[in-house]
Amino acid sequence: RDTECSGDGPGRAAVDFPVAVILPAGGSGERMGLPTPKQFCTILNRPLISYTIQAFERLSWIGTVVVVVAKENHDLMLNIVREFHHTKVKVVHGGTSRHRSVFNGLQAFSNSTDDSLTPKPKVVIIHDAVRPFVEEDLLLKITLAAKEEGASGAIRPLVSTVIATTLEGYLDHSLERAKYRASEMPQGFLYDIIFQAYQLCSEYDFDFGTECLHLALQYCGTNAKLIEGPPTLWKVTYKRDLAAAEAIIKENLSTSACVITEAAAEAVELAGTLQKNLATQGMVLVGVSSPELFLRLDMHLFESSREMKEKVKLNTTKRSFDTQKTDEITTFMRLASEVKQANVQLYGIQIDHTKVSELWERSAARLADITVALIRDRNPALIGQLLQA
Amino acid sequence: RDTECSGDGPGRAAVDFPVAVILPAGGSGERMGLPTPKQFCTILNRPLISYTIQAFERLSWIGTVVVVVAKENHDLMLNIVREFHHTKVKVVHGGTSRHRSVFNGLQAFSNSTDDSLTPKPKVVIIHDAVRPFVEEDLLLKITLAAKEEGASGAIRPLVSTVIATTLEGYLDHSLERAKYRASEMPQGFLYDIIFQAYQLCSEYDFDFGTECLHLALQYCGTNAKLIEGPPTLWKVTYKRDLAAAEAIIKENLSTSACVITEAAAEAVELAGTLQKNLATQGMVLVGVSSPELFLRLDMHLFESSREMKEKVKLNTTKRSFDTQKTDEITTFMRLASEVKQANVQLYGIQIDHTKVSELWERSAARLADITVALIRDRNPALIGQLLQA
Ligand SMILES: [Mg+2]
Ligand SMILES: [Mg+2]
Repeated sequence: RDTECSGDGPGRAAVDFPVAVILPAGGSGERMGLPTPKQFCTILNRPLISYTIQAFERLSWIGTVVVVVAKENHDLMLNIVREFHHTKVKVVHGGTSRHRSVFNGLQAFSNSTDDSLTPKPKVVIIHDAVRPFVEEDLLLKITLAAKEEGASGAIRPLVSTVIATTLEGYLDHSLERAKYRASEMPQGFLYDIIFQAYQLCSEYDFDFGTECLHLALQYCGTNAKLIEGPPTLWKVTYKRDLAAAEAIIKENLSTSACVITEAAAEAVELAGTLQKNLATQGMVLVGVSSPELFLRLDMHLFESSREMKEKVKLNTTKRSFDTQKTDEITTFMRLASEVKQANVQLYGIQIDHTKVSELWERSAARLADITVALIRDRNPALIGQLLQA
Repeated sequence: RDTECSGDGPGRAAVDFPVAVILPAGGSGERMGLPTPKQFCTILNRPLISYTIQAFERLSWIGTVVVVVAKENHDLMLNIVREFHHTKVKVVHGGTSRHRSVFNGLQAFSNSTDDSLTPKPKVVIIHDAVRPFVEEDLLLKITLAAKEEGASGAIRPLVSTVIATTLEGYLDHSLERAKYRASEMPQGFLYDIIFQAYQLCSEYDFDFGTECLHLALQYCGTNAKLIEGPPTLWKVTYKRDLAAAEAIIKENLSTSACVITEAAAEAVELAGTLQKNLATQGMVLVGVSSPELFLRLDMHLFESSREMKEKVKLNTTKRSFDTQKTDEITTFMRLASEVKQANVQLYGIQIDHTKVSELWERSAARLADITVALIRDRNPALIGQLLQA
């Protein structure tokens, strides 16, 4: 699922026409009660919008990603593009409403042969900056349906009954839930259709409309094809959604790991126990090899489909606690702080070397618990700590 | 906001009639992809449903809480009631649909003078087991409106556009978002009205209906009063929602703390720095006092409105790392494991006593970071660890 894989993924064969993306990211953080607009809130040291951009950028069949931001966030956005090495992003200024922002995004493409502009794509995907978990299979369905039908959109079942209210704030009637759907993102359009819809629509539409599919229907007579998406399409809206998104990202990150030990029987046994214990918590160890020196255990999280660069290393030594010198601990903490620059999180876990099998088993179980805790929480405040299994 | 406070809260004066609660909790965990139905999933070692029950039980003006569970979860539910000391709960078996379960709950109350049944309340509140964050002010509004108008319900703005689909899966039309609302929980009813509605409604309603407000309107002609609720009313539905709920509970838990240090200048200074650093992360230290012995720092999380019993203690000693004996660490870990039985999480943080103010400040800042990390994560796998600030 990394960039290399995606190049050979299903999309490459199926999509033989230019596809671009528009990501409106002009929203403010008001609803969350946060000073930072939610698309710029960081999860594991990376802004939410960078995850979303990455979800598109990793697909070889997707071209330009136009990010539409408020003028005051222009520099912030350019910094994110630089820091996270985004290569397909074009930053455009937003308008005073969502529809105006999307239209600004569409105008970043050229209908003419003016070389200073990016040529217009056949299909344009419109998505939200705050829906980071969009997968290739859905994007493919949306894109192909848009090409065929002119417009397409992701839908989800309604989670609550929808009701109409009277002016006085009483129930007027409730809708039969089965007949309606929630309209979500992504949506796809033939570029010419959505561009024409925006050219024809009214000022009222621009200021108060919320639904691009509606514009395509009203102004171009195009009934969008609707495609059911997964629950992970949800929109990160409230502060609690950041915690939910973090949990998903951590889970994606923590599914495989690699352990290196020396050949000693205890080390191999330890790796085996760790493997068994991690497996019960949904993690998999994918390799065990043996360097020399002392009892040592390195844990490396493989880069996931989201291409996170974080790694967790666990270091186990045979030496017992009371012979350890303060300056060794200082050295370890300094090392931890150095490798942190390279996005490696280094923690130490010390395990007593004992022949009493009961104690050894308990320590091995603790080692696994602590390992899982460190990987799951990835807490930078605990980097460089020497823990005891 | 604990039980004592609520006794004198706004509800006590305003509600001079009997109020009961029905909590349908018969759902399965299918949607989450979890083996455990979501209402029984634990957050910080406590099942979700116990938080929800607690939200009602703490209010003195609320009487019986009828929990409607699937037959196979009856014993599980009774165990939860015992373990978390719930005092107002009556467990009833559910039916094959939500409406049947609610009706079973209503039938737990007596219309007659039969002493074996709980007398019927004036107003009954219907809520979801998986919406744990319901506050007294909203419950009060719902209850008083139900008493006045016969029925009332919490609503929220729609987060997505609602669309009608054609049979072939295309967009038919989209609804104007501003005219509709999502119907949420809690809802309130005069007992006689909702009971009558269930007696009159059809088998089709029982099997396919989803909306109690609709039954009250259709069968009793009662237009429910609608009351806007806060976003925290959302329904814990997916696995990610458990992470979101945990984040909210942790945040509620971690808002105040108490530090005890000795009178030494360093200790007082340390407490001051900690206070300042915690404040920037949204935590407040509410007291500093001084016992004797060595440089020591105890951190105690006050019980929040949710009456969680977890506490975090941090212990700081002057002795430096290399003079420490293995058996002292073992003793510390044993102590940690003992107090864990009483729901006290004990971690050690060691800080080097130095006159170099630059080093001291850095250590103090690290102390605060580690403290916040431990409190926020509350990870049981790290209990008994001796960390270095
Ligand atoms: Mg995903
Ligand atoms: Mg709350």
